[in-house]
Amino acid sequence: MNISRAHPRFLSLSIRERLANAVKDGIMVPQGLIAHGRGEAFDYLLGEKTTVAASKATLAAAALLLKAEFPVLSVNGNTAALVGREIVRLSQMLSAPIEVNLFHRTRQRERVIAQYLKRLGAREILGAGEEARMTIRGIASPRRETDPRGIGRADTVLVPLEDGDRAEALQRAGKKVIAIDLNPLSRTSQVATISLVDNVVRAVPGLIKAATGLRNFPRGKLLTIIENFDNEKNLAITIREMIGYLRGWATD
Amino acid sequence: MNISRAHPRFLSLSIRERLANAVKDGIMVPQGLIAHGRGEAFDYLLGEKTTVAASKATLAAAALLLKAEFPVLSVNGNTAALVGREIVRLSQMLSAPIEVNLFHRTRQRERVIAQYLKRLGAREILGAGEEARMTIRGIASPRRETDPRGIGRADTVLVPLEDGDRAEALQRAGKKVIAIDLNPLSRTSQVATISLVDNVVRAVPGLIKAATGLRNFPRGKLLTIIENFDNEKNLAITIREMIGYLRGWATD
Repeated sequence: MNISRAHPRFLSLSIRERLANAVKDGIMVPQGLIAHGRGEAFDYLLGEKTTVAASKATLAAAALLLKAEFPVLSVNGNTAALVGREIVRLSQMLSAPIEVNLFHRTRQRERVIAQYLKRLGAREILGAGEEARMTIRGIASPRRETDPRGIGRADTVLVPLEDGDRAEALQRAGKKVIAIDLNPLSRTSQVATISLVDNVVRAVPGLIKAATGLRNFPRGKLLTIIENFDNEKNLAITIREMIGYLRGWATD
Repeated sequence: MNISRAHPRFLSLSIRERLANAVKDGIMVPQGLIAHGRGEAFDYLLGEKTTVAASKATLAAAALLLKAEFPVLSVNGNTAALVGREIVRLSQMLSAPIEVNLFHRTRQRERVIAQYLKRLGAREILGAGEEARMTIRGIASPRRETDPRGIGRADTVLVPLEDGDRAEALQRAGKKVIAIDLNPLSRTSQVATISLVDNVVRAVPGLIKAATGLRNFPRGKLLTIIENFDNEKNLAITIREMIGYLRGWATD
């Protein structure tokens, strides 16, 4: 590549290069790059940092994952490319299985992602292959198919970079949904039990840190953290942060 | 593809499919998809419609293009893929040459885009090949190279989907810059003479329509339209529209 280090957006452009390579490797589909761009724009409106509201959501999410009977981490191509290593680590900490769940689904891509995560240390990856064919009703994409050993029986699901359709269906199926989504207005953010409006490259390390801190907390204390968290209010605070950022530009 | 028509974002997902094909054809680079996604997010905050402020900017831009001694239309991969046909039409209306100018530049891609635009009716495409090697100072990307028969001698340049680096350098070189950029906070929008904060698929047809309406206006009237337009104020109004949209979500 021919981008000068002097270019003001060198760092962001380098991340873009990395994602373009994930497409070449078959981990991501081209459409995933568009979704990433959407996220970039919202991150920009948050000043590209983890807000106080996001930190609160992260703490509540870590408590919910630790309290869960059977938590599952759902992974798509973008998540694997951006934070594959951290997802494997979180899975090990929580003894929570990883399930591949793709919007643009092919057997080939399921396999490539599963192999990639195994190279990063994962023992087993659910959701790839013939067994992953339990249907969740009300989803208008191949994401409806889940693994009966994974999301199919989970009580809590971490869904980074989700589409709203499935987040809603998982909620309706009685599961707790933890979303990571930079758009606080998205259906995913709006319907999730807990919404982390944060860049996945900051949010997943944040979850690992929070879960480490809460690991030995008694169940009662975890419950208090969860009950004290108000997702709707937290989202409103996040939206107000974006408004504040924009307001700084609209003075004339 | 396997997206159901019942999916709530079917239309937006179909456009994404089209762009993914433009990458396959070599017109766009994968990084262009990320840039498109960024635009999508800002469009979403504008309600995915042309605002009153954008219409005002479009009218002033059409007047500026009609008044110009030597206007040039700069085209990159995203612009070609999204509005190639409309750019060719605008070029014919204004007798303004089209110049290919790429951030991720290869001879091969210059050729593919030039051929594509010629199939859509363009007679000549500048910027492709050896002659397009006049350097504009202060640009940290291959976009610094321009055609001395095109942007090199232009007094007014239309730059859809630009990076701020070049928009700034063109301004410094004494040219009038008309930007089409959905991000009102971007350096491009901030430094341009006239910024159309609108989706390029609405903005270029809008320019054609406005130019048709103003075609027979005397020079003095065009000047009045241009002089009455205040880009800074117009951008502030646009940002306030986004704030208004976000505010509707932050009531709790």
